[in-house]
Amino acid sequence: MLTLYHFWSSTCSRKVRITLAEKGIEWESHHIDIVTKLENLEPDYVKLNPNGVVPTLVHDGNVIIESNIIIEYLDDTFPEIGLKPEDTYQRALMRLWLDTAELQVHKNVNVVSYNKRHVPRMNKLFSKEEQRKILVRSPSADKRASMLRRLERGVSEEEENFANQRLGEVMDKIENKLGESDWLAGDSFSLADIAIAPFIERFEANGMETLVDWDKRPKSGEWWERIQSRESYQTAYAFQNPNV
Amino acid sequence: MLTLYHFWSSTCSRKVRITLAEKGIEWESHHIDIVTKLENLEPDYVKLNPNGVVPTLVHDGNVIIESNIIIEYLDDTFPEIGLKPEDTYQRALMRLWLDTAELQVHKNVNVVSYNKRHVPRMNKLFSKEEQRKILVRSPSADKRASMLRRLERGVSEEEENFANQRLGEVMDKIENKLGESDWLAGDSFSLADIAIAPFIERFEANGMETLVDWDKRPKSGEWWERIQSRESYQTAYAFQNPNV
Repeated sequence: MLTLYHFWSSTCSRKVRITLAEKGIEWESHHIDIVTKLENLEPDYVKLNPNGVVPTLVHDGNVIIESNIIIEYLDDTFPEIGLKPEDTYQRALMRLWLDTAELQVHKNVNVVSYNKRHVPRMNKLFSKEEQRKILVRSPSADKRASMLRRLERGVSEEEENFANQRLGEVMDKIENKLGESDWLAGDSFSLADIAIAPFIERFEANGMETLVDWDKRPKSGEWWERIQSRESYQTAYAFQNPNV
Repeated sequence: MLTLYHFWSSTCSRKVRITLAEKGIEWESHHIDIVTKLENLEPDYVKLNPNGVVPTLVHDGNVIIESNIIIEYLDDTFPEIGLKPEDTYQRALMRLWLDTAELQVHKNVNVVSYNKRHVPRMNKLFSKEEQRKILVRSPSADKRASMLRRLERGVSEEEENFANQRLGEVMDKIENKLGESDWLAGDSFSLADIAIAPFIERFEANGMETLVDWDKRPKSGEWWERIQSRESYQTAYAFQNPNV
């Protein structure tokens, strides 16, 4: 029995849903509303995921957290359709892309989208004092500290520009790599592509136009088209908010 | 041919040297002085390692960076003596420890040791203006920004306390886990133990006494003894500064 605790529009949840679809694994959905109902902060969920974030995978009673670790676990556990390069060097490059997705892309896209998307969405739902109370409930001290800081001081133009530049650097790296091979970790589609691609959708949704100007980075544009045309991508994105 | 670019007392270099010793792999040493000669900032080295940090592994012309990725690459490439659990769930837990080593331990030990070790060492070698010029040369924008901020403003007591608390949390997690199994990722010694252990040596060297009070965390103390008694640990730590 395989249960995924996830949120419909969370990028890290989408990474896992693409992986499940690529491998044709049956799974049970446990939707966790992280925006309105804040089910991720409920004690029962925090017992599963001590950081209070999505996604979480529960497989035969074993709990696995962190999307990069979940997708590699799925590939190790259900190896019939492999999503890791056979070559160990390419596999190392794949893991570098997984790190890049989390430590450079995820981190910086959160900075850039804070003023544009996060603030208006939260202000529509909650007063500033309510938002503060929600953040205080976050079980991760790191997240609590950085989000409370952002609530108090906002994200400055300087921080936003810095984050945007880091994202531009990643996009340049992607373009360079796709000049050498069809996929990020070599000649076959892998977890590297799955880890990075859902963030491109975020760049588009956030109107981060310089990052998704495919005239400037044509190889990346073609790669992004190829990924969106995969059944796995469409399946993962077809999962919509069950609460509306 | 396998060449390791490393610095004798760098924790991440030690992780790789322990892994090489566990597996009995022959390797060539290319010592990179990151403190006095700043060889990590030389253009030739930055071509290998775009972040300008150690370690870097070069194996038959392929360049691998990031210590967690290097040690898993070594295990994938030289599987005769395995350092990953067979069980895929334990393997996921192992990868979570690798992440913890880098994102929680490494990050926070740098904060805590900044005033105590980093500042006096650098002030003995360089004027503040020289230090600024060195930091500006760092090819990683993230590192450049955070280290320049620290040079200007220092690390506050509040930041140091916060980092110390995060390290205490990791030590508690280690103690809990070692109540369940002999090693961090299960019943056998693995890359998880290799990734975490060298930081314990740092806690001791930095006099971070509450973290290494083994009366308080006896399982961790026993585990730490067992690791230090391994030949691989002794070999890795026997590598001393070749420039003195």
